[in-house]
Amino acid sequence: MALADRLAALFAEIDEIGKTPDGGYRRFAFSDEDAALRAFFRTQVEARGMTYEEDAAGNQWGWYGEGRADAVVTGSHLDSVPDGGAFDGPLGVLSALLAIDELKERGITPRRPIAVVNFTEEEGGRFPLACRGSRLLTGVVGADDLDQLTDSDGITFAEARGAATFAPDPQALERIGHYVELHVEQGRNLATMSDAPLAVADAIWPHGRWRITIDGVADHAGTTRLVDRDDALLKAAHLIIAIREAAEATGTLATVGKLDVEPGAINAIPSRVTLFLDARAPEVCDLDAVIGKISSAVDERGAAMERISLTPATHFDTDLVADIAERFSLPVLGTGAGHDAGIIADAGVPATMLFVRNPTGTSHSPHESAELTDCAHGIEVLTDVLAYLATEEGR
Amino acid sequence: MALADRLAALFAEIDEIGKTPDGGYRRFAFSDEDAALRAFFRTQVEARGMTYEEDAAGNQWGWYGEGRADAVVTGSHLDSVPDGGAFDGPLGVLSALLAIDELKERGITPRRPIAVVNFTEEEGGRFPLACRGSRLLTGVVGADDLDQLTDSDGITFAEARGAATFAPDPQALERIGHYVELHVEQGRNLATMSDAPLAVADAIWPHGRWRITIDGVADHAGTTRLVDRDDALLKAAHLIIAIREAAEATGTLATVGKLDVEPGAINAIPSRVTLFLDARAPEVCDLDAVIGKISSAVDERGAAMERISLTPATHFDTDLVADIAERFSLPVLGTGAGHDAGIIADAGVPATMLFVRNPTGTSHSPHESAELTDCAHGIEVLTDVLAYLATEEGR
Repeated sequence: MALADRLAALFAEIDEIGKTPDGGYRRFAFSDEDAALRAFFRTQVEARGMTYEEDAAGNQWGWYGEGRADAVVTGSHLDSVPDGGAFDGPLGVLSALLAIDELKERGITPRRPIAVVNFTEEEGGRFPLACRGSRLLTGVVGADDLDQLTDSDGITFAEARGAATFAPDPQALERIGHYVELHVEQGRNLATMSDAPLAVADAIWPHGRWRITIDGVADHAGTTRLVDRDDALLKAAHLIIAIREAAEATGTLATVGKLDVEPGAINAIPSRVTLFLDARAPEVCDLDAVIGKISSAVDERGAAMERISLTPATHFDTDLVADIAERFSLPVLGTGAGHDAGIIADAGVPATMLFVRNPTGTSHSPHESAELTDCAHGIEVLTDVLAYLATEEGR
Repeated sequence: MALADRLAALFAEIDEIGKTPDGGYRRFAFSDEDAALRAFFRTQVEARGMTYEEDAAGNQWGWYGEGRADAVVTGSHLDSVPDGGAFDGPLGVLSALLAIDELKERGITPRRPIAVVNFTEEEGGRFPLACRGSRLLTGVVGADDLDQLTDSDGITFAEARGAATFAPDPQALERIGHYVELHVEQGRNLATMSDAPLAVADAIWPHGRWRITIDGVADHAGTTRLVDRDDALLKAAHLIIAIREAAEATGTLATVGKLDVEPGAINAIPSRVTLFLDARAPEVCDLDAVIGKISSAVDERGAAMERISLTPATHFDTDLVADIAERFSLPVLGTGAGHDAGIIADAGVPATMLFVRNPTGTSHSPHESAELTDCAHGIEVLTDVLAYLATEEGR
């Protein structure tokens, strides 16, 4: 069976898990869907004769070859954003499994062990922390930090995990010699810049998240004169437009993807709106510029702005990126999206990513798409990269 | 004890029921708070030697005097909007109970029976139908209509009511000869137009609710170029501003109090925003004017607008209003807020309301307020009105 068909068959095995009526996916931490996907991963690993393990941070591993030191690691994640697409995450895990099959078929005996990893809750779709599995693995966050997270139903991470415990795992991190993750591109940069179906990533843009709180005065929608109103949602509307204008003026990306209105009754003037802002830029100075403009707009409206997270730029290993780009004739691309590969790279591991062309650029949506032939090409190159890293001397 | 002190004491008895940390109240249908408030009402009725009854629609009644025909009825409701204030609803119920005490103290023997009513779920705080108790009583809605309502947790009315059944009750409606409800004013009209602490209502403005759906395209917030975006929330922001401008241009009230964003992830461009619009105006032609302008703005943005409900103007009984205004020297006032009194009036019962001055105009908010001395004055006038209606011949 052709590689594209084998990939389609693997996708079909998980297609019904967490599928929504409009063709998207909801695959959140500690859900039945999560359990089903983890069981699928373990089954696939064991079916390939690989050794199944879980690290202390809750990530799943499949080991191929002897030993555990200086491993060449590939993989991604199986969870999704709310109503996410089929590829973001699963493509990297399924491709990693198929790359192991390819290595076997090619009769390649790696000198270094190769591992396939499924990182837990990369999207932060349930608890508001992206890349939870890799952040905990590397100790960027601790177990106590996690326990305090709260999902949108008010359930804490501590409640959700029950008796299970999670902790940083420096030994599991130590084993990673190189990390290469295959992922669908989440924009149209590759599609617009070249005819290549695949690129290698050199950097993840700096990005951050902010909470903006706008207060008004709750009042009766049917009786309060317009001149007497202090409508938090009306102020929020002006701010959403100002945020877009700030992004346009600075050549950056700024998005309000989530918004809560209080008290949230049809006949009550909103007393408080909480906006969640996501901002990214190619360089830190650009990010500072857009946030500066947004801060001014926030101040003008008497609102408050609080940073939730700030991730500096990640520069993937320069030598590794240049080597892969040259050896496999791949264009080089940066991205505004965060990934476990960035967390692993920031922990000092030589890492990079391979991006499969996304013709529409759509991602985090049921309409996310990629050609299976492009994905198959990605798996072939991933196999080449794994074979190169795991068999060459001196890397 | 002075009337204001007795009112304060009654308020104190229910103060803790459904109270939120910021001093508001959450008193929703079929909750523990609802049960506690209904038990309180029954206890108060029976403590006064009145006869306790429930009608088929689930409203609570306390009967004073002989017979059931041609009754003079007063009361209001004990439920709240989310984070509502202390007065909207409870003031009318507590004042009705204290007016019965006043009648007794004055030694007045009514010729007609007097009833105090506690209407269920006037605010529609849980199920999206305001004035449920009075609408069902009068048969404006039927039991089947109710069963299909769904609360924000996805629980249907049919599930929430369990084994309890509710139905229209034409016989209970038939007993109402006159209806007068005391209520805190929900704006500053009385406070700005005169020095009077109390007014009589002549009309409830026509008002309606609409659902506006704005579609965009979900996409990744970190990778999608601004020019490639179709952000539903950005379009919604422009529409919220257009709605306010339409209200200003037409001298009406239009409010977006509730807004849902899909998929609602910090790092996903919104694919759909649902706005809920509340609009009111002194006359139907004004309401048509503002909705016409808003419809144009909705069309311009490719959004869709669907009417949820439309309540025509309620004109309270002209003779009754004029009689009370003249006899008790009260200014006459219209209101944009819907009330059970309007539903009862629309069913053909001579009805009106008394509005207690609200210095700040704030309502549907923890900051809703009224002076207890003004409320006490309201109870005295309510007592006068009940005595007048229940003892005079020929009304």
